[in-house]
Order: sequence, then structure tokens, then C-alpha cells
Amino acid sequence: MTAYDLCFLGFGTVGKALAGLLASRRTELRERYDVEYRITGVASRRLGWIARASGVDLSAPAGRLCHDVNDWLDRARPHVVFEMIPLDPHTGQPALDYLRAALEHGAHAISANKGPLVHGYRELSRLADACGKRYLFESAVMDGAPVFSLARHCLPLAGLRAARGVFTSTATVVLEAVEEGLSIDEGIARAQQLGIAEADPGYDVDGWDTAVKLCAVANVLFGAALVPADVRREGIRSLDAAHVRAARRDGRPYRLIGRIAPDGDTVTARVAPERVEPGDPLGVVHGTTLVMHYQADVFPGGLTVVSHDPDPTTTAYGLFADFVSAIGALA
Amino acid sequence: MTAYDLCFLGFGTVGKALAGLLASRRTELRERYDVEYRITGVASRRLGWIARASGVDLSAPAGRLCHDVNDWLDRARPHVVFEMIPLDPHTGQPALDYLRAALEHGAHAISANKGPLVHGYRELSRLADACGKRYLFESAVMDGAPVFSLARHCLPLAGLRAARGVFTSTATVVLEAVEEGLSIDEGIARAQQLGIAEADPGYDVDGWDTAVKLCAVANVLFGAALVPADVRREGIRSLDAAHVRAARRDGRPYRLIGRIAPDGDTVTARVAPERVEPGDPLGVVHGTTLVMHYQADVFPGGLTVVSHDPDPTTTAYGLFADFVSAIGALA
Repeated sequence: MTAYDLCFLGFGTVGKALAGLLASRRTELRERYDVEYRITGVASRRLGWIARASGVDLSAPAGRLCHDVNDWLDRARPHVVFEMIPLDPHTGQPALDYLRAALEHGAHAISANKGPLVHGYRELSRLADACGKRYLFESAVMDGAPVFSLARHCLPLAGLRAARGVFTSTATVVLEAVEEGLSIDEGIARAQQLGIAEADPGYDVDGWDTAVKLCAVANVLFGAALVPADVRREGIRSLDAAHVRAARRDGRPYRLIGRIAPDGDTVTARVAPERVEPGDPLGVVHGTTLVMHYQADVFPGGLTVVSHDPDPTTTAYGLFADFVSAIGALA
Repeated sequence: MTAYDLCFLGFGTVGKALAGLLASRRTELRERYDVEYRITGVASRRLGWIARASGVDLSAPAGRLCHDVNDWLDRARPHVVFEMIPLDPHTGQPALDYLRAALEHGAHAISANKGPLVHGYRELSRLADACGKRYLFESAVMDGAPVFSLARHCLPLAGLRAARGVFTSTATVVLEAVEEGLSIDEGIARAQQLGIAEADPGYDVDGWDTAVKLCAVANVLFGAALVPADVRREGIRSLDAAHVRAARRDGRPYRLIGRIAPDGDTVTARVAPERVEPGDPLGVVHGTTLVMHYQADVFPGGLTVVSHDPDPTTTAYGLFADFVSAIGALA
């Protein structure tokens, strides 16, 4: 039996879902993987930096209140840090500094955050290698459905050439609202009611969310070195509502589609509203469904992965699966 | 650099595609994984048991002609045996004996064959464990698209509950022919022209192929112990052609669908023609496309994997990916 001390950095919707998921899998972790765990730290803007080496009860977090991330890591001494704080897409901070600190303190750094992934993927991966730890980030794109683990474990040397998909559920929800006769702003209000829109919904509808995710995929899976400003970006605000409705009636609805395409030795990325033809692999997208379609040498017609109506547990599951992978429990 | 000696057991369409794939990936195997390989044996009904420790040129196979599998393994001394001989769904033989022999001779046993998987999964897995080797079989279901590696590496403790999919492309091709106005027999002829039908096409259209694949998935991913006779099975021959055409016109076409569903502590499997509703995750299936849709605790609306128009290289890729996994080259 191996026992792991875990720290939660961020304790919002996803953090709470992860706590629930870990608790629901406690017996299976023990029986299938010979693994025990204990939570030794939790931190959020509301809670501050809480550490207790003997274990924190996440239903009523209490313990020593530390003064910063390093103090917290010194006290909590985690084997694994789960990072899921709010995104700053422009710099990846402060998550980037926190993940660096986690690795330097000897913990695996598992992050749901696409900011540090886009701004620090190579640095954090090198640092993790140097520390003999892992930096993993399955939940940063497609909310916990397999993207990075799929490529790493299931598609070695598959000859990936291109990818496209729907990565921002808010955009789909807004477009569907417009298809029903509502305005863009009413669609945004609906996405906010569903709890899926980012704090700044413009971030989703203007294509920034997709652009950041495309950079993550392009840099990790396609060896590119893109930043969001490199992505040709067109959002859905400029679409004419009558055109959106006509496209739906026509069976070729608009969706906000991100594409990674070959360009010499590397790839380019762009995001724009496109009409989806009947029978297209992306044609399954409605509601909050996310989809990624890969083109690869060994899949002549492509390989598609679809996650239908993910919820916070799905995102938490990406972190959970990264944990199982990081500790080497997988066969 | 680690050098691996490989043997091919079966050298038809898939074997030739695997030889081409390995050759095309030789540089990347060296540069990315520090791996070299050499073919030291090839066997088929036509060639006999050919072994040459110094290397066999697969474009003109020659070497010592051995008298049986054990003699062949003794001479070729492979680290890995790729098994892809014709299927006997009723017993899994002789592939089952060959895979046992490969493991006992200290080789990883990598098989595209669903016969031994259904009839010998537990025995071969135990034997592989005892020998410190791997028995892997990604290509046995869905032609090399990730099924077993996906579950093993990407979905630990995901709480898989059920699965359904289209696993037999011949059935789809035949149904589409009927939708166009042809007869079932004309549809079968078309599938044979495409080279996708089994030697006995009844095996596909009567649901046996799907039934065998469902047993493989149920036994490996859902802990069941099903044999094909346990699967409730209905093929597509009994469908009325007018109904098939009307269903297509109606936008709810018939497809031959395999289902694994919970039943107390284990699962049951059945295969039958079903009408696919618009928007259903299986609705993308046309031509030779294969699809698997999983229900799991952590994917509220399910997770779908679609392989569009796979070809023999796709099947070969499943064996190739198993090879990379078996030798521990994956991160």
C-alpha cells in the first residue's frame, strides 16, 4: 500500500467535484491500485492557505493558515498538487508560479488550467523531468475527456496531421439560442445561468477560449510553439442572426470551430464560426457537447472523440486520471 | 538503444500493412523511443514457418523452414510475436495455442485476433503475467482505434456502466446497399468487392462478428465472462427491404448495433438491427465507419470514439501501438 498526500489549489466547483470523486473511489483505489490518499492542504482566495499534515476535512477545511504557496507546500508536504484556480489567459499567472513551486517541492503538478499550459508547457515539462515528477493537464482541454492521455498512450507515432473541433460549449449554447430566435446577449445570459460561461463571457464568444485551447493542443501534440495572439480568431458576435437561423433550417448550422492545420514543419491554428455539413464528424455537437476530430496517417477518415454534456465531475475526472497516471498506478 | 526481434504470425493484408508501418516508423522509433527492430521470423499457410535470426527480408521472405510453432520460436527467438492469422470464432484455435507458445517462449504476444481473446483472455493474461510479458489485442475490436488502451490508460476508475456501437462495417455497407434499392445479397457482394467481408459473410450479417467483439469488450472492460452463444443475436437478413428504405427516408436508418448493458453485478450483451435516431452518437455511421459509445459515471452524456473509414493500416496500427506499449516505450 502506498499513501499519497494531496493538496488542492483552488476549491471551487471543480475542486469540490474532485473531492467527491476521490472519496467515491477510495475503496477502488485501495483494492485495484493499492493506493491510499489523504488531503493535507487546501487553498483558495476565500480559505487562504490551509495546511494540516494529519489531514484536512474538506467538508469543513481547517488547519494552519500559511502565508504563501511555499510556506503552504512546506507544511502540507504533498506528493501531488491539484491546481484549478481561475484562469488568467494572458500570462498564466499566478498558476504558473504555483505549479513551478509544487514541482520544486517534489510534488506532481496536476492542473486543469490552460493558462500555465499555454504559457509554460515546455518550462514546466522540463522542470518536472528534472524533479523526477510529472506535469499533467488532461482537464485543460475538453473538460476531462481524453485528449493528452489519448495521444500519449494510445496514439504513439500515429502521424497526427491536423485536428479540428468544438472546444467552447458557451459558443454552442449561444448559437442554439440564436437559432431559437433569441439574441446573442440572451444566449450569453442562458450560458451564464447554466454555469458554463467564463467570468467574462466575451472570452468564450469572441473565440479566445478556443484559441487558448488550440495553442495547448498545437504545442503539446503537434510540436508547435503558438501563443493565443498567433491564432487567427473570429468570434460569433459578428454573425447575422437571420443567417444563423437559416443555416439551422438548412441542416448546416453554424458552430464555433477551432482548427489546427499543417504549415510546413509546424502547424497554424484558427478559430471561426463555420457551417457544419450533414454527416460531418462535428455534426454531433449540440448543447455543451465537446468534440475533437484528428487526422492522422493511420486513420484515413480520421478519429473522433466526443464528450456529451460534460459536467464538473468530468473536469474533476481529468485531474483524477492524471493522478492515477502520475503515480504510475496504470498497467 | 534497445533492439527487438519481431516475428509475424500471419502475413496477409494486415501483416503486409504492419511491415510497411514499421518500416515507415523506423527512424521515429529510434529517435523518439531509442528502439531498433529486426524481423526474425514470418509464418503463414503459404510461406510455412520461416525463421532467420540474422533477419528476414519481408519483401522476399527466406530463411530456415521450421516444422512447427515451437521450432520456429526456438530459431527466431523473438521478443515480440504479432499474431494475425484467420479467425476461428468457435474455438479461437490454432491462434490460442500459438499465443500460449509465444508467451512461454518469452515473447510479448500481440494479437489482432478476437477468437483467442474471447476464448482465452483470462488464461493468456495470467500466463503473460507469470512470464513477465504482455498479451495485448487492440486491433481485435474497432480495427485498431483505441478501445482497450483507451480504457486501460485514459479511463481508470471512470465507472464504466454500459457501451454500444457499430462494430461490423460489412453490416453497414449491406444496409446502405439495401437503402439504395439493392438486395441483401447484392450488398454482400459489394462488401466482398471492398474486401471488408469475412470469408463467410454470413458471419457478419447474422451478427456473429459483432457478438464476438461484444464478448471481448464485455470480458475485458466490464469483467464479464461471456461467450458468443451468451449474446442475444439478431442479424440483418430478416429485415424487410421496404422498411429499411423507409427508415432511411425517415432519417432514422437501421444499423446493426451491439450493446453491453448492466445486469446486476455483471453485464449482458446483445446485437440487433436498430433504428438510429437523429442526433444519436451512433448516427455518424456510414460506410465502413466504426463507433463505440460508452456510458460512465464521469461522462454524464457518454463518451464516443469514432474511427472513420479505417483501412488495413489502421488495423496494423493497433498492433504497432501495442508493440510500443508492451516494450514500455510510452511515457
